[in-house]
Amino acid sequence: MTSHLRAGPLRARRTAGGKLLAVLAAFSRERPTLTLSEIARTVGVPLSTAHRLVGELTRWGALERDADGRFRIGLRIWELGALAPPALGLREAALPFMGDLYEVTHQNVQLAVRDGDEVVFVERIAGRDAVNVLTQVGGRFALPPTGVGLVLLAHAPAEVQEHVLAGPLTAYTQHTITDARQLRRVLAEVRRSGMAVSDRQVTEDAVSVAAPIEVRGAVVAALSIVVRGSSPAAVRSYAPGVRAAALGIGRILASTSTWS
Amino acid sequence: MTSHLRAGPLRARRTAGGKLLAVLAAFSRERPTLTLSEIARTVGVPLSTAHRLVGELTRWGALERDADGRFRIGLRIWELGALAPPALGLREAALPFMGDLYEVTHQNVQLAVRDGDEVVFVERIAGRDAVNVLTQVGGRFALPPTGVGLVLLAHAPAEVQEHVLAGPLTAYTQHTITDARQLRRVLAEVRRSGMAVSDRQVTEDAVSVAAPIEVRGAVVAALSIVVRGSSPAAVRSYAPGVRAAALGIGRILASTSTWS
Repeated sequence: MTSHLRAGPLRARRTAGGKLLAVLAAFSRERPTLTLSEIARTVGVPLSTAHRLVGELTRWGALERDADGRFRIGLRIWELGALAPPALGLREAALPFMGDLYEVTHQNVQLAVRDGDEVVFVERIAGRDAVNVLTQVGGRFALPPTGVGLVLLAHAPAEVQEHVLAGPLTAYTQHTITDARQLRRVLAEVRRSGMAVSDRQVTEDAVSVAAPIEVRGAVVAALSIVVRGSSPAAVRSYAPGVRAAALGIGRILASTSTWS
Repeated sequence: MTSHLRAGPLRARRTAGGKLLAVLAAFSRERPTLTLSEIARTVGVPLSTAHRLVGELTRWGALERDADGRFRIGLRIWELGALAPPALGLREAALPFMGDLYEVTHQNVQLAVRDGDEVVFVERIAGRDAVNVLTQVGGRFALPPTGVGLVLLAHAPAEVQEHVLAGPLTAYTQHTITDARQLRRVLAEVRRSGMAVSDRQVTEDAVSVAAPIEVRGAVVAALSIVVRGSSPAAVRSYAPGVRAAALGIGRILASTSTWS
């Protein structure tokens, strides 16, 4: 599970604003809190510069200082993030359907979008007694081994598909598809059937069923249920529920103006 | 319901980084998408400067451009926001308990923190057939009329309490407490009883029961159930569930290192 906030193209030619953004980019899921000197080291600026940048960001509310003197992302960035498409629109449209699916199945329900060649998990409802899943909201993962990733990859632009198919295709378990030709066949089947099944490709005990969320013909997100087991046939029984919920979310999104 | 992203103290003395932050601050729940000229006008810079700032933010992923050419907050800010304390820590600790409460009651369940003299709603599970509530995740509201706000205000530093009590206290319904002495008595009762009941103070048909989420003796958030009705006695029957869930969330938070 990579959280992978890109270092960005600003590293080379660094404006004052670019340095400010580089401070924000120093924080990641693996390193959610940083000391001033860790920030200076990560951004590659003197401590005095880091101090000034961190001061500006803290006054604005982009960073907060905790009781130990470590810095972390602040409430204001979280508020701004609540205005981004995954939150405003997608998440609000999806949550009631996800809640219904959870209530009916008591399995893990996941919502994801694609960013480049990765899955970004936007929301999940974790079943208390369901199989343990590694995903976290805001977390990223490779596209090919996950159900949502297969759906998103199958409907990605050709250049994204070719880039991913060119590999390498990492094996997470002995069931992970690492052969490009086989993956290409699976993606065609996903497009044909309108759903994807990922069979123990991420962990040895989890199978997922995923369906595309479409708005005016474009796949903008994917919905999945992740269940314990090794029987794709049994898992497929969840498909109608997942597909119907995904259709419902797409219908709601199409009727709202914030999603285009 | 105000979303109220503060204009910030940077308006006066504007560094290059400050202008970049001012562009981000132009977006709000009321104005989630903006054209370039709207951004220029809001930030108070020439169109050419706005173009450069927006370009830098778009390349970094802080902004995205939609099909209509309007800009909005991008995926990367949403990802960073997922690292802020309300998301990383509080939300993850609270969601399973909120899910349990929802499953048992099928009423609206809300999680909120205090920022200055406002409530910020961090998460909610909306009951499909439950009373309509105005809150949105990331939205703000005044402290005194809401259940969560009463809890957070009752445990706020003295200067915050005095500032709010100094008024004005806005009446949202005929039941909203607008008398400072009465509010002061209510806050004392909230501290004594370990819970708050807000009776139709926000809308005419909703009553909420709220409890504090404490970590090592400090109230860091509040949890509530909002139900339709006008009988605080009936509503109080939800109190044990809300209080137990709030205690559980605090226990989880105390055992994790990201919350301090």
